[in-house]
Amino acid sequence: MENKIRVTIWNEFRHEKTKENVKAIYPNGLHAVIGEFLKETGDMEITLAALDDPAQGLPDEVLNNTDVLLWWGHMSHKEVDDELVKRIQARVYLGNMGFIALHSGHHSKPFKAIIGTNGNLQWGREQKEIIWNLSPSHPIAAGIPEHFLLESEELYSEPFYIPQPDALVFGSWFEDGNIFRSGACFIRGAGKVFYFQPGHESCRSFYNPYVQRIIKNAVYWAKPNDSACTIADKCPHITEPVINEFSK
Amino acid sequence: MENKIRVTIWNEFRHEKTKENVKAIYPNGLHAVIGEFLKETGDMEITLAALDDPAQGLPDEVLNNTDVLLWWGHMSHKEVDDELVKRIQARVYLGNMGFIALHSGHHSKPFKAIIGTNGNLQWGREQKEIIWNLSPSHPIAAGIPEHFLLESEELYSEPFYIPQPDALVFGSWFEDGNIFRSGACFIRGAGKVFYFQPGHESCRSFYNPYVQRIIKNAVYWAKPNDSACTIADKCPHITEPVINEFSK
Amino acid sequence: MENKIRVTIWNEFRHEKTKENVKAIYPNGLHAVIGEFLKETGDMEITLAALDDPAQGLPDEVLNNTDVLLWWGHMSHKEVDDELVKRIQARVYLGNMGFIALHSGHHSKPFKAIIGTNGNLQWGREQKEIIWNLSPSHPIAAGIPEHFLLESEELYSEPFYIPQPDALVFGSWFEDGNIFRSGACFIRGAGKVFYFQPGHESCRSFYNPYVQRIIKNAVYWAKPNDSACTIADKCPHITEPVINEFSK
Amino acid sequence: MENKIRVTIWNEFRHEKTKENVKAIYPNGLHAVIGEFLKETGDMEITLAALDDPAQGLPDEVLNNTDVLLWWGHMSHKEVDDELVKRIQARVYLGNMGFIALHSGHHSKPFKAIIGTNGNLQWGREQKEIIWNLSPSHPIAAGIPEHFLLESEELYSEPFYIPQPDALVFGSWFEDGNIFRSGACFIRGAGKVFYFQPGHESCRSFYNPYVQRIIKNAVYWAKPNDSACTIADKCPHITEPVINEFSK
Repeated sequence: MENKIRVTIWNEFRHEKTKENVKAIYPNGLHAVIGEFLKETGDMEITLAALDDPAQGLPDEVLNNTDVLLWWGHMSHKEVDDELVKRIQARVYLGNMGFIALHSGHHSKPFKAIIGTNGNLQWGREQKEIIWNLSPSHPIAAGIPEHFLLESEELYSEPFYIPQPDALVFGSWFEDGNIFRSGACFIRGAGKVFYFQPGHESCRSFYNPYVQRIIKNAVYWAKPNDSACTIADKCPHITEPVINEFSK
Repeated sequence: MENKIRVTIWNEFRHEKTKENVKAIYPNGLHAVIGEFLKETGDMEITLAALDDPAQGLPDEVLNNTDVLLWWGHMSHKEVDDELVKRIQARVYLGNMGFIALHSGHHSKPFKAIIGTNGNLQWGREQKEIIWNLSPSHPIAAGIPEHFLLESEELYSEPFYIPQPDALVFGSWFEDGNIFRSGACFIRGAGKVFYFQPGHESCRSFYNPYVQRIIKNAVYWAKPNDSACTIADKCPHITEPVINEFSK
Repeated sequence: MENKIRVTIWNEFRHEKTKENVKAIYPNGLHAVIGEFLKETGDMEITLAALDDPAQGLPDEVLNNTDVLLWWGHMSHKEVDDELVKRIQARVYLGNMGFIALHSGHHSKPFKAIIGTNGNLQWGREQKEIIWNLSPSHPIAAGIPEHFLLESEELYSEPFYIPQPDALVFGSWFEDGNIFRSGACFIRGAGKVFYFQPGHESCRSFYNPYVQRIIKNAVYWAKPNDSACTIADKCPHITEPVINEFSK
Repeated sequence: MENKIRVTIWNEFRHEKTKENVKAIYPNGLHAVIGEFLKETGDMEITLAALDDPAQGLPDEVLNNTDVLLWWGHMSHKEVDDELVKRIQARVYLGNMGFIALHSGHHSKPFKAIIGTNGNLQWGREQKEIIWNLSPSHPIAAGIPEHFLLESEELYSEPFYIPQPDALVFGSWFEDGNIFRSGACFIRGAGKVFYFQPGHESCRSFYNPYVQRIIKNAVYWAKPNDSACTIADKCPHITEPVINEFSK
């Protein structure tokens, strides 16, 4: 048990309570559905967290025991506490936690702060999307074919003002004439970050087996390394020249 | 005159002689049309070269006086002399020449050798293409809007087995459901390389003002630097420790 | 005059007033010295700004008329106003301004926020540094030899927790056994950012001709593009399918 | 047994037969030492191959059953058969094999062809080297401290004319004033490539536990993905629009 990846799935969790069409698709919240398919791996211990939970769902005892944090937010980005954002950002940079932003999480405070972006993109009506596998050798693309279809997703379009990713794994085609860099890896500090575009609250993408496989792969990829480095949250002062170690 | 960028435009130049529909669009070869619009800058000295010219158009006196080489080839890639490819590759790596591969040049010997790729992609019928500007701050995107349309281009589709580019400047949407990384920069050795997808022989893309602007921008970007380094085509042996320079 | 690059050099400007050894080297502040050598280009209009100036030196009428902002801060990073940081960050992301962080600016609020880093590194005593040119074809390396020496600089050492740069232009060797990625380019949003390591207040690096050339090159490189894109500080809603433009 | 990673270690294997000082360190060849420590993982099936073996050690039945190929060559790069190089390159690009170049393998035909580089660097006398961990979150850096020492290695120095790596994992400091990008990952086609600098034939680096750990990590990292893509060695012609799949 102690070797399982400790995954926390944070969801704004408001649309599912207030909109009938969303509730019909994700009655217990979309984070619950994500938790279900991640549990299937047998390798992950799942915690669900929501904006309206105490401490916005991420008190120290949860955050400090999270190996990979998934984040879905949409209408209430501004309500997320700035101090919480700093704790998340620090934990990623220090290599203690991976971070996965889903769909409208592109505009969430933690994604923007961690990556260094305003997260801006263009968006439009729900429509057909085709996701192309741009990097078949990447661990997050394991088991994913050359392309797959989503019957209906919200249009997200370039220009998407992210930095050039460390690896661009997926790109998307949309019916109305748009393209989007829909699956992108970033290394920030000693931490790993993945952004993945599908997952609008009124669409069924989190039930798609390829979407599920990608998110599973991303958790394995983003989990902290077996690192032998001590990473302090400061700039250490070197007082003894490294070359002196040769004579030891 | 001596400060002009010396641009050589290499064209396979066979379709234009044998196919009526191509001849109608590019009567003197597509390289002639490219040469015309590059001349408009007033900064470039243009040389046209073709596969069936003596020395395949690139004898030493031409190649060794070229700052930027543009390359369009299609059906006859295999006829290009392997020794010529090595001379082109070496000149780019040593920082003496930039290289721009156009359209079907993705499968040309010099592009593949310089970049380190098999150049493979998928292709299909001529159709509508929309080119998206993914990097408005890149010099090659200067003057290019967020997106522009091509009424008819040959379908090029992912997966395109290029290495992740040093800068991905343009991406394309195609009518049939495909996307493509259509404008990509690569640094190789001390040289700069740009790949650009439009330019099928039976389409009119080289008359498109945005396509023209992009190719002009790319020539400025790819030209050799004002370098103060001597770059030898070998591995120099250091016999005097660099730190001894401190006491000089 | 109207075509000059509008450069603002922001300096914390306190060491030069309080420490005799610093005052001796930079009597009017190190930003004044930087301003002098940038003026030599004839292409730049220089504004000096300091932390203790009104509006911390960057009121709207200054910031909104700056094409490239240079930043040197050290002991007083925390005093920089968070709202000012947001204005700087937004201006870079929207492609209206380049940003150049010098030396201890690695830990400044704007550098950290723009890039997405905690800026952490290791540091130590002043010593010999050798700067290696890793990318002779990069515009910022124009005119710079394979390597050059600094008799005395503050030790900055890896691990430096920056994201992998879009281009790594310089790397440094230090006497005590350390290395450092000392010249690094980042694209963030539609803006360009350069970090350069030399420039400790008690060293003379800003008088070194290669350091001066690099900073000049960096200003030319970082200035905003001739962009044809309108970049809004929001996520535009697309209401008309792009493909409809084909029939216009 | 069938799930083990099939690792082939190719060694020029001539210095060890002709030079007494090399024979003393690696009596059965340095590939034998590498094979021994890789076997300790329990996950790898090792094949040793040498230049003077039949078919230069890599007949089809060996190469086509190799998941990761390690390569050490030095004086006899030119003797390696060009057709063998093409088979290696194709196997990597198609995602069937990872490739790890060790030390002087930077100038080997397969490394240069796969990566797209002339492999040039500077070199000098054996001396003290310090290897710095630039990317603690990278799988190849697992278990590796912030830095470690090698008492004696051959000097390899920048400028090293490799393309910017997809991940720069290690950098090195040398006693004489030089630095070197000593551990670098490249994605080429659907394959993974790692270059690692230590391993001169007259030095003992392959006995260093950190060097051993890095090479073990690199094998795990470079092995082919569980890919669901069929990757053909050609440009497939799409005859049926992808969007038609929506109506199926």
